[in-house]
Amino acid sequence: MSFSEFPSKLLESAVNEFASLPGIGRKTAFRLVMNLLRRNKDEVLKFGESIIRLRGEILYCKVCNNISDTEICTICSDERRDKSLICVVENIQDVMAIENTRQFNGLYHVLGGIISPIDGIGPADLKIDSLEEKIKNGGIREVILALSTTMEGDTTNFYLYRRLGKYSTSITTLARGLAIGDELEYTDEITLGRAINNRNPYQQ
Amino acid sequence: MSFSEFPSKLLESAVNEFASLPGIGRKTAFRLVMNLLRRNKDEVLKFGESIIRLRGEILYCKVCNNISDTEICTICSDERRDKSLICVVENIQDVMAIENTRQFNGLYHVLGGIISPIDGIGPADLKIDSLEEKIKNGGIREVILALSTTMEGDTTNFYLYRRLGKYSTSITTLARGLAIGDELEYTDEITLGRAINNRNPYQQ
Repeated sequence: MSFSEFPSKLLESAVNEFASLPGIGRKTAFRLVMNLLRRNKDEVLKFGESIIRLRGEILYCKVCNNISDTEICTICSDERRDKSLICVVENIQDVMAIENTRQFNGLYHVLGGIISPIDGIGPADLKIDSLEEKIKNGGIREVILALSTTMEGDTTNFYLYRRLGKYSTSITTLARGLAIGDELEYTDEITLGRAINNRNPYQQ
Repeated sequence: MSFSEFPSKLLESAVNEFASLPGIGRKTAFRLVMNLLRRNKDEVLKFGESIIRLRGEILYCKVCNNISDTEICTICSDERRDKSLICVVENIQDVMAIENTRQFNGLYHVLGGIISPIDGIGPADLKIDSLEEKIKNGGIREVILALSTTMEGDTTNFYLYRRLGKYSTSITTLARGLAIGDELEYTDEITLGRAINNRNPYQQ
């Protein structure tokens, strides 16, 4: 089934909108739109409005650049969190991933990307100045670089360390090692080498 | 990454809306929403409005039940089409599939479903009365039953034939046989049997 002709312009435009999303082809888009057509009007109105409101009303926290409904996000405005500890992450998904571990009680700093020459993203495109400013202003004990262990992540770590290492704040990175469930046989040699070098006393 | 906590209610509600679509899980929904967040406001407004307008303004053709922007769809109101020939289909997708073949010049009648006792869909749930009405009113030379070759399609064909066979209109079904590219070896015996029985003179 191809879609050379739609019986309705409204249908065609809705299908086109869905098909513009990443990973959604025209057939899937059509299926999604047909699903919406079967729902009642109020439900579809709510769907459409939630998209419009999201883009129209969403804010980015003035302190950490995390997505937020308020000028300062719930994490940055939480009095119980350790404000001397900053975890630097690439994006909002990473904030959510770390929050879900419930192991971190400091604040975040969302870079809004990662240095990637191939995609034309350099340091100037990221929120690095405001991070340096925070450290300069003092009161920051430790900055954790929590970036992906990819080429881009390593490049960004290197750049950040060169730029922030001159301050008295300590700069740390996430531990490298075996993931839970990893089999030694199938672990790459760099990870395995790091896991040997960074070995820990056995804990019962 | 699970999504126990969202940093924003707006984000959470948009993700929930997308995740309510068939075949879209929460991770995919999140990815789609993040894509929308990166677009400019007007684009996202257009997206949301296209969904709302679709459900709010779409019409179903009074003659054939096909989806339409007007009370009578473009096919039914096309003077060049043969109004004595009606092709009965399950849904709008099937109208589009047949239109794309450019082999049919009659009108359609969209049943809006197919008889399926398992899904609790009986003849009363389909637009069969209005189809019978059209035939009763006369002027219909042929009704083509263009339903899927499934159990449900066969049941519906059987029911329609029992109900409409008493009128002078001829009732036909789509030809059964080998599809283009089918290998004999892998064709099921029923299809192959029908293809032998319905064999045609060789055409050069």
